[in-house]
Amino acid sequence: MKDLKSLIRTIPDYPKPGILFRDVTTLLGDAQGFKAAIAQLAEPFRTIPVDAVAGIEARGFILGGAVADRLGCGFVPIRKKGKLPWKTIGEEYTLEYGVDVIEMHEDAVAAGSRILIVDDLIATGGTAEATAKLIRRSGADIVAAAFVIDLPDLGGLKRLDAMGVKSHTLMAFEGH
Amino acid sequence: MKDLKSLIRTIPDYPKPGILFRDVTTLLGDAQGFKAAIAQLAEPFRTIPVDAVAGIEARGFILGGAVADRLGCGFVPIRKKGKLPWKTIGEEYTLEYGVDVIEMHEDAVAAGSRILIVDDLIATGGTAEATAKLIRRSGADIVAAAFVIDLPDLGGLKRLDAMGVKSHTLMAFEGH
Repeated sequence: MKDLKSLIRTIPDYPKPGILFRDVTTLLGDAQGFKAAIAQLAEPFRTIPVDAVAGIEARGFILGGAVADRLGCGFVPIRKKGKLPWKTIGEEYTLEYGVDVIEMHEDAVAAGSRILIVDDLIATGGTAEATAKLIRRSGADIVAAAFVIDLPDLGGLKRLDAMGVKSHTLMAFEGH
Repeated sequence: MKDLKSLIRTIPDYPKPGILFRDVTTLLGDAQGFKAAIAQLAEPFRTIPVDAVAGIEARGFILGGAVADRLGCGFVPIRKKGKLPWKTIGEEYTLEYGVDVIEMHEDAVAAGSRILIVDDLIATGGTAEATAKLIRRSGADIVAAAFVIDLPDLGGLKRLDAMGVKSHTLMAFEGH
């Protein structure tokens, strides 16, 4: 088994000075690494019912599509404002400066269905929290939220835990 | 087997009057439909060597990630300008008004590697053609380009054929 963490590229000072950006594309581009990451993301959910994966734009689409296919369930896109063609519901989340909005089709998840959230990385958890709120507003249940990378110093997993959302991550990087 | 075409939602007058938008999210959200679509997209390439799937942002990420996992190969994101964190190469393509640019990491595909392009839909083929040019500029070979939906009246597949790129599609809708 390859060490998945060694396949992540760290880019200093991106997108701004002082930030170490954890670039997952080098993992995605490695055939063995990609397969192992998808297998490990899906593993805890293989034996429990999942109706759909909710993948967060954009890197969560790459991982979430593959996880949904492994689990034999549907896929629901969680997109940035104005990108979905049908009627949507939206949820605001806070950025460093100001707020942004994520959206989901209003008919994308059925009440009572069981949804797994997937993204590449959890930092402060703002987008994941907004995604969880959207799903619950539709009356659906959240099985868990799965990420390749956790940045524990930014507290995202604790934020999800505080709202009763379990999480599953493959690796962590200290700092941010 | 479900009729995959019946799972596509048609939205009239989106994004502007007179356009029938073919919405693939209703197919993605259907567990059986999603599984069948991924299986059919991957089928012609199961017995030939593919080193990576190049998925075109954003819906091509959902399908391309799952196809790459089925084929046991890597995944390369083709993104809109300014979205990739590392050094990129870019290619312009023409829109109805003006031009846009897609980008790929400069080290994403190795010379001589075999790449399968994946997106949800081919219309005029501008983005797919630009993607094919990017891949060839890196010295890689294009196995084929695979799409769920073809809009044949817009001529995208002919445009790819004219540059020697084979294509594979699951369904077609007349008109645009």
